[in-house]
Amino acid sequence: MSEIIVQKFGGTSVGSVERIGIVANIVAEASKSKKIIVVVSAMGGETNKLVKLANHFGENPDKREFDALVSTGETVSSALLAMALHSKGIKAKSYSASQISMRTTDSFSKAKILDVDADKILKVVDDNTIPIITGFQGITEGGDITTLGRGGSDTTAVAIAAQVGAKRCDIYTDVDGIFTTDPKVVSNAKKLDSITMEEMLELAGQGAKVVQTRAVEFANKFDVPVRVLSSFNDGSGTLISLGEENMENALVSGIAFQKDQVKFTLHGVGDIPGTAFKILGPISEADIEVDVIVQNVSVDGKTDFTFTVSSDEQATVQNIIESIKKDVNFRELIIDSSIAKVSIVGAGMRSQAGVASAAFRALSENDVNIQIICTSEIKITMVIDESLVEKAVQVLHDEFNLDE
Amino acid sequence: MSEIIVQKFGGTSVGSVERIGIVANIVAEASKSKKIIVVVSAMGGETNKLVKLANHFGENPDKREFDALVSTGETVSSALLAMALHSKGIKAKSYSASQISMRTTDSFSKAKILDVDADKILKVVDDNTIPIITGFQGITEGGDITTLGRGGSDTTAVAIAAQVGAKRCDIYTDVDGIFTTDPKVVSNAKKLDSITMEEMLELAGQGAKVVQTRAVEFANKFDVPVRVLSSFNDGSGTLISLGEENMENALVSGIAFQKDQVKFTLHGVGDIPGTAFKILGPISEADIEVDVIVQNVSVDGKTDFTFTVSSDEQATVQNIIESIKKDVNFRELIIDSSIAKVSIVGAGMRSQAGVASAAFRALSENDVNIQIICTSEIKITMVIDESLVEKAVQVLHDEFNLDE
Repeated sequence: MSEIIVQKFGGTSVGSVERIGIVANIVAEASKSKKIIVVVSAMGGETNKLVKLANHFGENPDKREFDALVSTGETVSSALLAMALHSKGIKAKSYSASQISMRTTDSFSKAKILDVDADKILKVVDDNTIPIITGFQGITEGGDITTLGRGGSDTTAVAIAAQVGAKRCDIYTDVDGIFTTDPKVVSNAKKLDSITMEEMLELAGQGAKVVQTRAVEFANKFDVPVRVLSSFNDGSGTLISLGEENMENALVSGIAFQKDQVKFTLHGVGDIPGTAFKILGPISEADIEVDVIVQNVSVDGKTDFTFTVSSDEQATVQNIIESIKKDVNFRELIIDSSIAKVSIVGAGMRSQAGVASAAFRALSENDVNIQIICTSEIKITMVIDESLVEKAVQVLHDEFNLDE
Repeated sequence: MSEIIVQKFGGTSVGSVERIGIVANIVAEASKSKKIIVVVSAMGGETNKLVKLANHFGENPDKREFDALVSTGETVSSALLAMALHSKGIKAKSYSASQISMRTTDSFSKAKILDVDADKILKVVDDNTIPIITGFQGITEGGDITTLGRGGSDTTAVAIAAQVGAKRCDIYTDVDGIFTTDPKVVSNAKKLDSITMEEMLELAGQGAKVVQTRAVEFANKFDVPVRVLSSFNDGSGTLISLGEENMENALVSGIAFQKDQVKFTLHGVGDIPGTAFKILGPISEADIEVDVIVQNVSVDGKTDFTFTVSSDEQATVQNIIESIKKDVNFRELIIDSSIAKVSIVGAGMRSQAGVASAAFRALSENDVNIQIICTSEIKITMVIDESLVEKAVQVLHDEFNLDE
């Protein structure tokens, strides 16, 4: 049997019946030389429409019902893509999560995949039929419908690729691949032919969300090579390769950035064990993703504790901090919503020095003040004023010659 | 345990989030004194939207995919109604066909119900939770999604009522009940408080399609009383009772009519055994419903064979007749598309004489020419010129004093 490729098409790729027709062409072409399994998202905008209907009955609809509701979008697009393939004379069958036993945990709206009936999928493939599987959906042991959270279709695709032993998972989207930075900001941004999983993880976490972070983690864990490419333009996309395949890492592979961030600083907090947990515990319990966390050395037993969250969460986080004020002693809460994050990402950084200092010099020469610095093995994140983001990204892109 | 009522809400009843809120009120009110099981259709117009999407990929999409696609409408409305009930503090859970094992035959798009997991539904009811079940949907032995055909939700509701031993099945719709004839045509048409199953079957078959014919047949077979009432106005609706309960049948209970009909006459056909089958066999194989079928006594071994079908089917039937022309000898095919059917329905007719003659007299006095007459035990159907329908219905309604 020839090798299996899992192709995943996102919401914009299947955003209309015309687009679904184009996707059918892509699948048809690929199926000439390979065994294909397809995973689809809902048609672009459909999930939002369903969410709006639900919100008519309150801000927090029952999660079991919410998942049953929003999962219908994927059922629609999978059936339509099967029909589109039939109209080209190609055998295809749609499958819902329930029909391929895509078992998940019962955490509605953010369920985790446990298992999938790979044999059933492979039986369809062996019958020379292309299975068109609904992304995003799952099913609990008890038969309730779950969803994997926004963007979960990528994870569905990678999980299926892992379970059926696919050679690769191709994630089709509306961009040509992963770029050194956002081409809308830096006109000479360059598409990367390949990137390591780790670099991708760092980039994804920083807002370059071409592929869901969880999907990349999954791919990493199960050694599934993932390729990101466009369903709108021809091209080979960007291969997210396993670290071992890519010994010669670029020093810096890309510049990520993220606006709409809020910085919370608890000024004059006691530098005693457990403080960080007291602050971040209730925030993470509320399912809020905290990103940059910085605590400086203390002076006179007092320190400043700073972290950033997405702007959407500002009110919630503010309430949480107020509620723990008695428990966590601090002098003042400072909130700054005019900030942004810029990150330099590169798997080569860990074995090379000088990237950080070059970055800091380039930014200071261009009057970009760095408020916070936070580094990991393959990433340097800086918090700067939001108005300076475009300038900073361009400066760093030039500094590391990413257009070459 | 108090008695169980199955409530079914059609597409117009759940046509918007506002309407779903009103339906939630109706369910909530009823649940104060009874155990309620709800069956819902898709939001009005949704199924047509899905059909339109499918038709983009050809006139005859694969039926398995078509059913998977159009069944999503009911999943949406069931989840939304559950949310609406939650917002009123009432426990409710949506269930798809797959989740309650609504097993059907595998005739996609016109599947027949085989069985349903009544225990699972009753367990939910026992837990003081209202099950909101998707109408229209089914599932095959092999796990494929099926649909019961247009209006199939009524059948779902009656089937569930039968299986759980419900006291009654209340079918909520956008009319106040069954009328003696269409109130839009005859202003003094009267709502019937009750009607027999047989009368309802005859009326339904004649286009007074408030309840699906199949659902009424099902109710008849399993002795489930059905009530038809409005989700828009208060009122007790019309009870479709079992024949035995209604000994004193009205002579005539209603006047049904149906436009958009085509009359096919095979003129000069040989009066030999097997002719009727040769003509109607291929038509019924093409799943076309033939209604009035008349064949007169033959003269010189030749006769005229006439039948009516819905206007939608004119082209198809014409092609079929052309294709069997060699096999079935006839002189001429006459097609008349400016006809309509008018029927007098009444369970009392079978034991009383004179209804037919009174009808024929009244129509002739009002210059309505009757082209074809066809009678059954409780129905007299007449084919007349389409332009005379409103007049004929009014004349007959007056003749039998149906406004009293």
